[in-house]
Amino acid sequence: MTQPLRVGLAGLGTVGAGVARLLRDNADLIAPRAGRPIAVGAVSARNRGRDRGVDLSAAAWEDDPVALAGRGDLDVVVEAMGGSDGPALATVQAALSAGRHVVTANKALLAWHGAALAAAAEAAGVALRFEAAVAGGVPIVKGLSEGLAANRIARVYGVLNGTCNYILTEMARSGRDYAPVLAEAQAKGYAEADPSFDVGGIDAAHKLALLASLAFGVKPDFGSVSVEGIDAVSLADIAHADALGYRVKLLGVARRDGDAVERAVRPCLVRAGSAIGQLDGVTNAVVVEGDFVGRCVFEGPGAGAGPTASAIVADLIDIARGAAGPAFGVPAASLAPPVSGALRPAEHYVRLSLDDRPGALAEIAADLGTEGVSIRAMNQPDHAGEGGATVLIVTHACQREALDRALARVAARPVSLAEPVAFRIEDV
Amino acid sequence: MTQPLRVGLAGLGTVGAGVARLLRDNADLIAPRAGRPIAVGAVSARNRGRDRGVDLSAAAWEDDPVALAGRGDLDVVVEAMGGSDGPALATVQAALSAGRHVVTANKALLAWHGAALAAAAEAAGVALRFEAAVAGGVPIVKGLSEGLAANRIARVYGVLNGTCNYILTEMARSGRDYAPVLAEAQAKGYAEADPSFDVGGIDAAHKLALLASLAFGVKPDFGSVSVEGIDAVSLADIAHADALGYRVKLLGVARRDGDAVERAVRPCLVRAGSAIGQLDGVTNAVVVEGDFVGRCVFEGPGAGAGPTASAIVADLIDIARGAAGPAFGVPAASLAPPVSGALRPAEHYVRLSLDDRPGALAEIAADLGTEGVSIRAMNQPDHAGEGGATVLIVTHACQREALDRALARVAARPVSLAEPVAFRIEDV
Repeated sequence: MTQPLRVGLAGLGTVGAGVARLLRDNADLIAPRAGRPIAVGAVSARNRGRDRGVDLSAAAWEDDPVALAGRGDLDVVVEAMGGSDGPALATVQAALSAGRHVVTANKALLAWHGAALAAAAEAAGVALRFEAAVAGGVPIVKGLSEGLAANRIARVYGVLNGTCNYILTEMARSGRDYAPVLAEAQAKGYAEADPSFDVGGIDAAHKLALLASLAFGVKPDFGSVSVEGIDAVSLADIAHADALGYRVKLLGVARRDGDAVERAVRPCLVRAGSAIGQLDGVTNAVVVEGDFVGRCVFEGPGAGAGPTASAIVADLIDIARGAAGPAFGVPAASLAPPVSGALRPAEHYVRLSLDDRPGALAEIAADLGTEGVSIRAMNQPDHAGEGGATVLIVTHACQREALDRALARVAARPVSLAEPVAFRIEDV
Repeated sequence: MTQPLRVGLAGLGTVGAGVARLLRDNADLIAPRAGRPIAVGAVSARNRGRDRGVDLSAAAWEDDPVALAGRGDLDVVVEAMGGSDGPALATVQAALSAGRHVVTANKALLAWHGAALAAAAEAAGVALRFEAAVAGGVPIVKGLSEGLAANRIARVYGVLNGTCNYILTEMARSGRDYAPVLAEAQAKGYAEADPSFDVGGIDAAHKLALLASLAFGVKPDFGSVSVEGIDAVSLADIAHADALGYRVKLLGVARRDGDAVERAVRPCLVRAGSAIGQLDGVTNAVVVEGDFVGRCVFEGPGAGAGPTASAIVADLIDIARGAAGPAFGVPAASLAPPVSGALRPAEHYVRLSLDDRPGALAEIAADLGTEGVSIRAMNQPDHAGEGGATVLIVTHACQREALDRALARVAARPVSLAEPVAFRIEDV
């Protein structure tokens, strides 16, 4: 057996310590699969003394991760610190400059700086790999960039944030509203103390930016991804959607439309019987639609120490075997800036709260008609007579912009008692 | 851009012609992903004149696929002829001997000769790749051998034959029995005129043998895989299973149990709400359970020209990039013969047809108890009084051998009106 692959671990939190444990526990099967052993040669973290459940005393210690990245005795640096800038960025840049391969789970870093880092890796002739950055343990980066590489991709979409899916699933299951379910998710460790990255859709959008790059050869360019979170989803909408045969999911969708690439994270209604509709709890799922393969679904745990370590070590095994393709599947110089186009028309779910008097529905229907939005189904559930009447509408496929203009007309009418709510129905 | 990867296509049926079409249609995106163009340099088929919907006049023609495999101007031979022996085997052997990489979709060939061919490929320093041999377009070979390579796999299982899943799904949906649904599947092109490879479980078992090799480092050794088909599944069992909250699926399961590896294809009951339970129609799905990643599901089209070509060309792109790991993920010399162990105990579904007289159930319960099989649930659906009574039993986890002994006792009793039926309930 040849020389071991020498790994430097920058960061020894949940992810870094998980990688160290995996390399120790499964060393016997990793060596034959990688063609050589994979050894932790050096580590860096903020607190040297902390017990991490794995003995790293044989590895050299560096206080400074950038110094670790520059060490001459390493082949690969695993960046496991997190953050879109600061030490994580400096460490990855230093490692690439020094001619070290880099493996990272850091979706924020790559969503912002992926194109530049991919170019730096190519210039240095080393690999930049990030299987763990999207959907945790699910090998979707490899699946998309290698397994389905022969296909012209039409659309890639999925449930990319387990926290949001847990909250939406739990609201539907228990009939409780957003706030108490979020509090429970925090208590269970499924949501951070500051949940805004998750529930605001940012984390999912980071991952979507990377999927879009892999699928369509565009720069991640996070700033131009459209993002909405789940805080606007009410229990009422989940219940109404259910009655109509839909589930509400926070969906990341990247779709090619001519030269444009639509990239959006937003709450959507999806058919209850679809693979995405049936996805409960913290599981992630990604669906890829290719011209030759048709539709492939990848499902599994989207977060956690074990799944993240599984993905990082898979990248290390690839590197040990000599894999060295470009980070986003095509040369970095060919990554085009994504062109945003008009959203593909879609059916929409609309919930209105109207004063319950004769003629109200006619006024609404007229507003929709004026903007060219046609109604596929309308339903006014029976109500106790107190407060306004809830009116549910499913539109035929329409442009969101036209629907928004129509709903602005509706909102301006005296008959309208609350801001209209509208969600896209994504055909999954 | 460097020299094109020069491919020889041995076989121009559905699969071979599909590969040629894909290489033509998506040439613009394959070249940047592969780092160089992929070109068809030579072809071989039985009928030179046939119109295959793709112009291959620029490629050299060989009447004999073995001669094609020996040509000096090719880098890779794609074996798309089929058959576990004969010309397919001779062609692959010739290509490897000549130092050509080989890509094949031929599950039968590899299930029988995979270990020897993997050794020949290693000796020649070339790749032997077979993504298309398992679950068609779904990149499960790569997912298992690379994406999840860091994991100790406990179990890999799935629905591996679309024809069987279509038939079982359609029986459940339409309430029609096996024979007419099979006839319809044949009319629709989902089943062969001679369906025995599919409905007998052989095709699924070929694929399972390959999955077990990748997951557990054992030889494919097809002869020792346990195989049952779906012809024993009656409409009554599907309906009873449904009432109990289960679906009947033809499941391939490979499981590590100490040093032993269980490998079996058989009809099983699975929870209706599970990913496998919800899988309808011709779709394939494979579930991998690893110690660090947890559970990952891969789903997609298991057959057809497009999906198969997608998988074959993915292998070609990998080869063009220089990938050259061992065929089954570890060196061929380390592939161990699979050791068969006792099946893990499982709950079972049992259907009995009994003479409807006092004491009958007591006799049956005694027989099960004598063999140590304990009853979790027993149900005798109301019946019109004509013929025998149907008795449904769900056992607690038990050894199949013990259950079979108990059912032999039951069958020998005068009260028993028909051969007992039993299916394993797989915990998915």
